[in-house]
Amino acid sequence: MSNVDLLSLVRDKVKKLKAYKVENYDCDIKLHANENPFSPPAELMESFRKSLEDFKLNRYPDPHCNGLKRILSQRWRTPPETLVVGNGSDELIQLILQIFCDMGDAVAFPDPTFAMYSIIAEGMGLKPVVHPLDENWDFKADEFLGAVEKHDPKILFFSFPNNPTGNCFSPEEIKKTIERFRGIVVVDEAYYDFSKKTFIHDIRGHNNLIVLRSLSKIGLAGLRVGYGVADPLIIDQINKVRLPYNSNTVSQTFSEKVLGNFSQVQEQIDTIIQERERLVRALSKIKSLKVYPSASNFILFRMEHDAGTVFKKLMDKGILIRDLSSHPRLKGCLRVTVGSRDENDQFLLQIENLTRAENLTT
Amino acid sequence: MSNVDLLSLVRDKVKKLKAYKVENYDCDIKLHANENPFSPPAELMESFRKSLEDFKLNRYPDPHCNGLKRILSQRWRTPPETLVVGNGSDELIQLILQIFCDMGDAVAFPDPTFAMYSIIAEGMGLKPVVHPLDENWDFKADEFLGAVEKHDPKILFFSFPNNPTGNCFSPEEIKKTIERFRGIVVVDEAYYDFSKKTFIHDIRGHNNLIVLRSLSKIGLAGLRVGYGVADPLIIDQINKVRLPYNSNTVSQTFSEKVLGNFSQVQEQIDTIIQERERLVRALSKIKSLKVYPSASNFILFRMEHDAGTVFKKLMDKGILIRDLSSHPRLKGCLRVTVGSRDENDQFLLQIENLTRAENLTT
Repeated sequence: MSNVDLLSLVRDKVKKLKAYKVENYDCDIKLHANENPFSPPAELMESFRKSLEDFKLNRYPDPHCNGLKRILSQRWRTPPETLVVGNGSDELIQLILQIFCDMGDAVAFPDPTFAMYSIIAEGMGLKPVVHPLDENWDFKADEFLGAVEKHDPKILFFSFPNNPTGNCFSPEEIKKTIERFRGIVVVDEAYYDFSKKTFIHDIRGHNNLIVLRSLSKIGLAGLRVGYGVADPLIIDQINKVRLPYNSNTVSQTFSEKVLGNFSQVQEQIDTIIQERERLVRALSKIKSLKVYPSASNFILFRMEHDAGTVFKKLMDKGILIRDLSSHPRLKGCLRVTVGSRDENDQFLLQIENLTRAENLTT
Repeated sequence: MSNVDLLSLVRDKVKKLKAYKVENYDCDIKLHANENPFSPPAELMESFRKSLEDFKLNRYPDPHCNGLKRILSQRWRTPPETLVVGNGSDELIQLILQIFCDMGDAVAFPDPTFAMYSIIAEGMGLKPVVHPLDENWDFKADEFLGAVEKHDPKILFFSFPNNPTGNCFSPEEIKKTIERFRGIVVVDEAYYDFSKKTFIHDIRGHNNLIVLRSLSKIGLAGLRVGYGVADPLIIDQINKVRLPYNSNTVSQTFSEKVLGNFSQVQEQIDTIIQERERLVRALSKIKSLKVYPSASNFILFRMEHDAGTVFKKLMDKGILIRDLSSHPRLKGCLRVTVGSRDENDQFLLQIENLTRAENLTT
């Protein structure tokens, strides 16, 4: 028998953390996680099935992801040595923090933004520093840097388009930030396919820039594949701390197939963008809602009603979206992922009903 | 344009690291990575193929791995809350270090052992402390603790069976260590299936014990699935710093299928154990080799010849094994993974030839 005082052994910083809770309610219509509503196209599924026969699952994966990097290299016209593949882009966020930050160091980003920057940083004993976005969910380089630089942040994170606000920050301001900041700037383009704006081609002239991408929003969330693009010197450092087999064989191979035959996935993306525009138009017609412009696959809107109640009532109808109203800047705000046409119709029907009913009772 | 002095931004500890190089020579016979030589049995492959149709690859994986934990819970008669799944057990090693160690803290293990304990610890800015195993590759709790405790290690790691020596340390000495040490003891049972000795059932009485397991050695190296068993309080802390979607849908589902129909994989394991015994017998007949007993799926042997030359000559014949001779305790040592009968025959033929030829020239 041995019985130690376990909690006394746990690092203070970890002890204080709360576990990241993933909302996992049992709803038929899932419009909460910014996933692609469509399964991979039948032809792709068929090629997945076929590739299964060639898999050597008993063998370790390619630690360098050479096949996948070759395809990415051609697609983005950037040398393979500027690329690194992660088990999701959140793993890459963690690795970037690991190579540039000592414990207690600050990292900075505008607010509101993707919650994982803060969560991962805190999990590693780092200090997240935030500066509020303006009323258009945008920022000015000078003002942002002026506010955060006194904390000596090692890294800045920009979600582009920004989650959960949906917009792209002014590219000029991001560029100005990259050029003025003497540390690392991460531009997280997880939603690139819905905005078509990218900083990948700026890597060449800016050795402090890291662009992150993900295949999670375009149909492969289940496989956990993200990648980073940066100066080879940064990639070398990441490779030093990256676990050698962080990306598995199936994820690598399926990703290669998706990227190698992108036209089918592109059709899904085009449909999602069309649906996004339709959803924005329809939501904008509801007078009690303020709908924010979106360059992503989700839409943020603010309501005069109690957002928490509307969120729960939608859930009762089998529709799960995201309640962001507890964030001080996002009072009354909900976020809905663009779903299939039918899912969006059902969501619209319910939100129209709920806002009408609420209007009647208030 | 921006051009910062990138290396000045990288943490000193990381700058000093060398990238972990994975040997990836192009050999037909791969006996270097302790993989299962056999692909998953046809029936399992068929069930993998079928499950592909049900996959929702566009959806994020189950962040709690509930299905897999349920099966593991039944298999090892341990509650689900004592279990955590990793993207390979090396990810779990990293998470364990993250929750218990502040930068600069020491972690200790006997030497020689699995290289990743040291590599991961150094990557995180921790201090690996080693104490030499005795001539039988075993250790005494008192002596080990006496030697390492002055460095105040937060965690001890024991590979059981030990890689690369192949043996299991005395279970009594491990148990004594767990009971006397006031920090965390990790028993890494990656090769459990070949030794059938386990500390899983000791979790209940020892809240400072963590047992690690892997599916990589029994046929799923390509999928990256490891798991940890420990007091629920430790699991809770790991879950705080674990990325929510660290294990992907395919790896979870395929693992469930393997563990749910283990008899076919068990047959492969039994074959490997038989082949291991045959290999040990055959190698022992070569007078210039010292063969160490193995409770794993690999065999360590020491030769009077130049191990590096033999390693290279085997490679010329298309057989890749592991050259460990640069380690001060492993001069003249090579490690061979137990392969299929045919692979082992080819290896034996070549090693017999090489040792004979070498004998003639010396």
